[in-house]
Amino acid sequence: MISITPVYELPEFQKGMNIGEEIVKNFQLLHNDVVVVTSKVVSKAEGRLVVAPSRSDFEKHVLSESRRVLRQRGDMMIVETHHGFICANAGIDQSNVPEGYIALLPKDSDRSARRIRDQIYAKSGVKVGVIVSDTFGRSWRRGVTDVALGVAGIAAIVDLRGSLDANQRELKVTEVAIADEIASAAELVKGKASRVAVVVVRGVEDSYFRESTVSSELVRVPIEDLFR
Amino acid sequence: MISITPVYELPEFQKGMNIGEEIVKNFQLLHNDVVVVTSKVVSKAEGRLVVAPSRSDFEKHVLSESRRVLRQRGDMMIVETHHGFICANAGIDQSNVPEGYIALLPKDSDRSARRIRDQIYAKSGVKVGVIVSDTFGRSWRRGVTDVALGVAGIAAIVDLRGSLDANQRELKVTEVAIADEIASAAELVKGKASRVAVVVVRGVEDSYFRESTVSSELVRVPIEDLFR
Repeated sequence: MISITPVYELPEFQKGMNIGEEIVKNFQLLHNDVVVVTSKVVSKAEGRLVVAPSRSDFEKHVLSESRRVLRQRGDMMIVETHHGFICANAGIDQSNVPEGYIALLPKDSDRSARRIRDQIYAKSGVKVGVIVSDTFGRSWRRGVTDVALGVAGIAAIVDLRGSLDANQRELKVTEVAIADEIASAAELVKGKASRVAVVVVRGVEDSYFRESTVSSELVRVPIEDLFR
Repeated sequence: MISITPVYELPEFQKGMNIGEEIVKNFQLLHNDVVVVTSKVVSKAEGRLVVAPSRSDFEKHVLSESRRVLRQRGDMMIVETHHGFICANAGIDQSNVPEGYIALLPKDSDRSARRIRDQIYAKSGVKVGVIVSDTFGRSWRRGVTDVALGVAGIAAIVDLRGSLDANQRELKVTEVAIADEIASAAELVKGKASRVAVVVVRGVEDSYFRESTVSSELVRVPIEDLFR
């Protein structure tokens, strides 16, 4: 059984705050828990809030966070960020940040995840996986889901290629994006307005815990992308 | 808290079998549980296994299940199915089916979900949500995740547009594809070879339970698709 539990009572994060320490103060973590942290609080702790009072300031930041704009419709630009993520407005948004500010995505969410994992270990001695998550749209299905921007100590992808199915025939392609699935699972206990920024997923298969990064495993490079 | 629990001891499904009844026999369901059923067993119970011993038989079925082929690479065709799903090989696969057979997707997974929901209610008197799920790739991220092909009694999309964020500003677009997120969460307790075909997700927000369909809410119509 897997359980998904929100972490309540966390403070409003400010630049320089230790996210791992605040989580440890508010939740009794166990070995091989997966701690899912909304990128927004990582951005706040890492000083990625910037002043952008006008629409044109916003657009300027979307462009400077992007390698290129893939599509535009009305106010929304679908871009490829410098990280290689395809998302609306470079993941920049204005919800849950002070008036006149916007939150840029963390510069390197894999590194952020490692830092939080190490903070948690330093404060509690517990080894956990950490996922930094955000909410992205998809090309072919309506609605948004939460996905992993960065991971530490937990696989981004579990490669079941070559595993046998129940009839002992070979499975050809089953690379499961478990970090995205865990991020999506965590979203189910977050109300958008309820300030649940951290969720603990407990009971994930032990074999899924290993060193990994989103940038090396989940980001699709343009050359293998049939739809960019 | 949300819990995700596999249902064990289910029989091998054959054409005409009552999926809801078998679930009720093997799991004590509660009001507002979400029962996630792999499309493969729905296909089996609905007689959607067909004989296709050769590669050309397989391709013939992929084409007959599709409106059009969007891309092709090697053996894999990315198609738009008659349901409007964009996926590899029209969702047809050969794993966990008898040698020489292939499993086509259910004809109408929303209807299949309603049937299973009604079967469960008839046998147990318990009102649950049902999701029929499958494993699809994505355009911009590596790896597959489980998504909802059909729903009954649970929202495909939860529309938080117009909700206020924690700072009382309006959120512009937050249509969360919770049926896909629940399907992904359920996948985390399925090993591909372990025959876990049904998973129960308990603790989903009460307000998410309502009549809904994937076809009307999650399938993106071509005219609003920027990348087809």
